[in-house]
Amino acid sequence: MKTEKVIGIDPGTNVTGFGIIESCSRKHRLLEYGCIRPPRGMKLSERYHIIFESLEEILLRYHPEVLVVETQFVNKNVQSALKLGMARGVVILAATRRGIPIFEYSPTRAKKAVVGNGRASKEQVQAMVKLLLNMPHIPQPNDAADALALALCHLQSTAYKKCLGAEI
Amino acid sequence: MKTEKVIGIDPGTNVTGFGIIESCSRKHRLLEYGCIRPPRGMKLSERYHIIFESLEEILLRYHPEVLVVETQFVNKNVQSALKLGMARGVVILAATRRGIPIFEYSPTRAKKAVVGNGRASKEQVQAMVKLLLNMPHIPQPNDAADALALALCHLQSTAYKKCLGAEI
Repeated sequence: MKTEKVIGIDPGTNVTGFGIIESCSRKHRLLEYGCIRPPRGMKLSERYHIIFESLEEILLRYHPEVLVVETQFVNKNVQSALKLGMARGVVILAATRRGIPIFEYSPTRAKKAVVGNGRASKEQVQAMVKLLLNMPHIPQPNDAADALALALCHLQSTAYKKCLGAEI
Repeated sequence: MKTEKVIGIDPGTNVTGFGIIESCSRKHRLLEYGCIRPPRGMKLSERYHIIFESLEEILLRYHPEVLVVETQFVNKNVQSALKLGMARGVVILAATRRGIPIFEYSPTRAKKAVVGNGRASKEQVQAMVKLLLNMPHIPQPNDAADALALALCHLQSTAYKKCLGAEI
């Protein structure tokens, strides 16, 4: 039985959530989840460096076959989009340097995959991620829960032999 | 006499302009300039990888002491800002990984430093860059000219013992 290891990432300059799930014949096993939080007092350039190096370390530890990020329909202002882009850029680079394909899913699709409703609340997503991964607690913070939801979305999508995400 | 080597970068997903200038007691010498243009048909993730690797190669070849980018007052739409951020993120990462400090200057300051007028046209900037660096031709494309203007701006600013850019 082929196992698949997927890492979901929710990039951000302040908090980058991640979650790694191993899946075998539709059974999911949570390997690790958490956040990369570069110290806020640090120079921006150093913060992106920390995100990149921490992610490199995680990729080296788990060797995921796929990295999943959210499609960014940014309803933020332009300066936030620029900073988010910088965090996203270093995340994508870390994966590409290791030859890991990157897929993206819209937030609506990720919610639909996990909760069954594309307009689900943050709390509903967290509760379903906990349930699907048999976790003792609600995954916290929200950035990590979102990362896990993205990974689950990809695994569910590929389980039906049809990847619904876009490769970027 | 201390020489200083500065690289200016104008990041972009389609075209990333660069220019390296060596300066000794206010005399400038152009070392190289040009563009990194990842093939347009390529996946986005691969394009950022090419920008990163090409820049790493340039940094390795010239060992600049400082990297200069433009302060991004983006008057673009949010999706463009996100893509610009991704290109900017990998540029900043390449410098930070080599311990190269990064400075940023506003476009107005760069124009003022090179032409003497913060509202100078693209053509005026190109003509002054050509003159200041004793170039046989107008530097082309504009992304490379802008990168050279940024490097000149930093060198001029530090020549007066007062760096007017912000370290990021």
